[in-house]
Amino acid sequence: MPLSKLSREGVEEAYELIRNKVKKTPVLTSESISSMVTDNDSASSTLFFKCENFQKGGAFKFRGATHAIEKLTPDELKNGVITHSSGNHAQALAIAAKAKGVKAYIVMPSNSAQPKIEGTKGYGGEVYFSGPSAAERESMTAMIQQQTGAKLIPPYDNPDIILGQGTTLLELLSQVEENFGKKLDAVVVPVGGGGLLAGCALAAQGTGVRVFAAEPAAADDCYRGIAAGKRVPTVATTTVADGLRTPVGVINFPIIQQYVEAVFTVTEAEIVAAMRLIWERMKIIVEPSSAVPLAVVMSDRWRSIGVKGNIGLIVSGGNIDMNLIGPLLSSAC
Amino acid sequence: MPLSKLSREGVEEAYELIRNKVKKTPVLTSESISSMVTDNDSASSTLFFKCENFQKGGAFKFRGATHAIEKLTPDELKNGVITHSSGNHAQALAIAAKAKGVKAYIVMPSNSAQPKIEGTKGYGGEVYFSGPSAAERESMTAMIQQQTGAKLIPPYDNPDIILGQGTTLLELLSQVEENFGKKLDAVVVPVGGGGLLAGCALAAQGTGVRVFAAEPAAADDCYRGIAAGKRVPTVATTTVADGLRTPVGVINFPIIQQYVEAVFTVTEAEIVAAMRLIWERMKIIVEPSSAVPLAVVMSDRWRSIGVKGNIGLIVSGGNIDMNLIGPLLSSAC
Repeated sequence: MPLSKLSREGVEEAYELIRNKVKKTPVLTSESISSMVTDNDSASSTLFFKCENFQKGGAFKFRGATHAIEKLTPDELKNGVITHSSGNHAQALAIAAKAKGVKAYIVMPSNSAQPKIEGTKGYGGEVYFSGPSAAERESMTAMIQQQTGAKLIPPYDNPDIILGQGTTLLELLSQVEENFGKKLDAVVVPVGGGGLLAGCALAAQGTGVRVFAAEPAAADDCYRGIAAGKRVPTVATTTVADGLRTPVGVINFPIIQQYVEAVFTVTEAEIVAAMRLIWERMKIIVEPSSAVPLAVVMSDRWRSIGVKGNIGLIVSGGNIDMNLIGPLLSSAC
Repeated sequence: MPLSKLSREGVEEAYELIRNKVKKTPVLTSESISSMVTDNDSASSTLFFKCENFQKGGAFKFRGATHAIEKLTPDELKNGVITHSSGNHAQALAIAAKAKGVKAYIVMPSNSAQPKIEGTKGYGGEVYFSGPSAAERESMTAMIQQQTGAKLIPPYDNPDIILGQGTTLLELLSQVEENFGKKLDAVVVPVGGGGLLAGCALAAQGTGVRVFAAEPAAADDCYRGIAAGKRVPTVATTTVADGLRTPVGVINFPIIQQYVEAVFTVTEAEIVAAMRLIWERMKIIVEPSSAVPLAVVMSDRWRSIGVKGNIGLIVSGGNIDMNLIGPLLSSAC
């Protein structure tokens, strides 16, 4: 296999490989939400929501997992693939592996939520449990890898994963042109491990689209890393945006440094309010992580930098425990 | 204005009038839900969900309201429009009237849900309160009509409303062909007052698409009317599917009699289970009425008639009180 290019061209090549395997998820607009982010002055903004909550497995993660598998040779694939994840990447890899007809070994912390365990098993993943710490997960993964010869597919710190996730923006740009006859001025992308953000930043190169990152203040390693000029390797895991509780990856960080214009952080209350607004006005179920970009463009700090026009927001996923919806909604009242 | 034709041609003409004013709502599929309605034998079904929960005002009602307004002459429109409704039609008419630049008077029962009152006012509707009975609402409406000269736009028992709602199926058929390269074999439509059902039944004429109705057993006036060969003019108002608590209209009933192949009823538990399934698997927020068609195709009675292939389901709306979501979800567990 040729080397993966960490460039817009690399994202385009990734899309050629996966376009018939991923869902072309819809782009939705909401007049009422767009009007809320329009300033008192005459300039107005239109928001375009790229709905990866409708992607297979319920999140953008399926793009990266599919691309990473497509890049492997039959020989590399013959013993299956393996990852450790308690979240959307686990389900995504299980589905992608099943579609390819290979085994997927998934190491999950033993305290993972039951629906995620069931989901991963339901998609055909072979689940192994480890202790909750990173060290425990990694040693369990290494052990199974040794026994099976399975190929490791990490959740974000990997060029092929980054390029696969970047196809989200590629698709959004073409849909905004084809379906709405418009060009995006900017895109706001949630950042956890940085696979989606780095991929979208690469996809935006040469298009003139400005790329901004959205991060929970309670997990602001990216924000602090960019400010300090040095990756922050650990992060708190308390934010309601459970998909963003990971530090930015080693490969991801310099791409973000180079191509992302600014990182905005938002509070937990802002995230929950934005999520409730999306549910109510757009009638779609999104997980808290997906509401972080909207929370950003509704914040005063965003308004102060004066980005206007056609703004894309990446809705990263919709995998939320239904039993949490009631409590989250009442906490937002 | 020429007379409205209660035929497929009439629906096509309605679409020409409103196509640039309504949202072309997305058609979604779900492999996992489709696989659940596939029998053990080899024949399989693919479900296509026409998502009118994404329509302006959050329901298909905006189509009929827009069409009814478009059919009025400037002279008929000059004093505004009026209706009595506690639900989606009220909001839809308010938005359509605002877009046309005319006043909308909306008579709502004084016990209407606060979010619906706020919604209607928020869209620019001038709200008047009446007592809860049909007689009280009608006399209040007549009084305001007399004072203002506003034109009455009823929620369903009206040819232009019926034709406007029928554009939902017209659009669905073309989207299934364009986006999926397939032809629908059948469509399942929820029935309350019968505007949407009668309109879709007209739109299906000459296409070979079989039309079925979906109704809560707790509000089964359509089912009983068809069985008896005579419209049932009253209906219980206890079902969780609050959009379907109305008896079928006088104009609607004979159209349904002539063109709808069968009416299926489902229990309250089946409706809530189907709604939860849509939320979980499809990541969209639908109101209980919208889940009634899925509840039908998941029922044993549906399986027994052996309708297979490409089946359209009309998701009628997404207007649900967010505070009810928690309790509804736990009741479905």
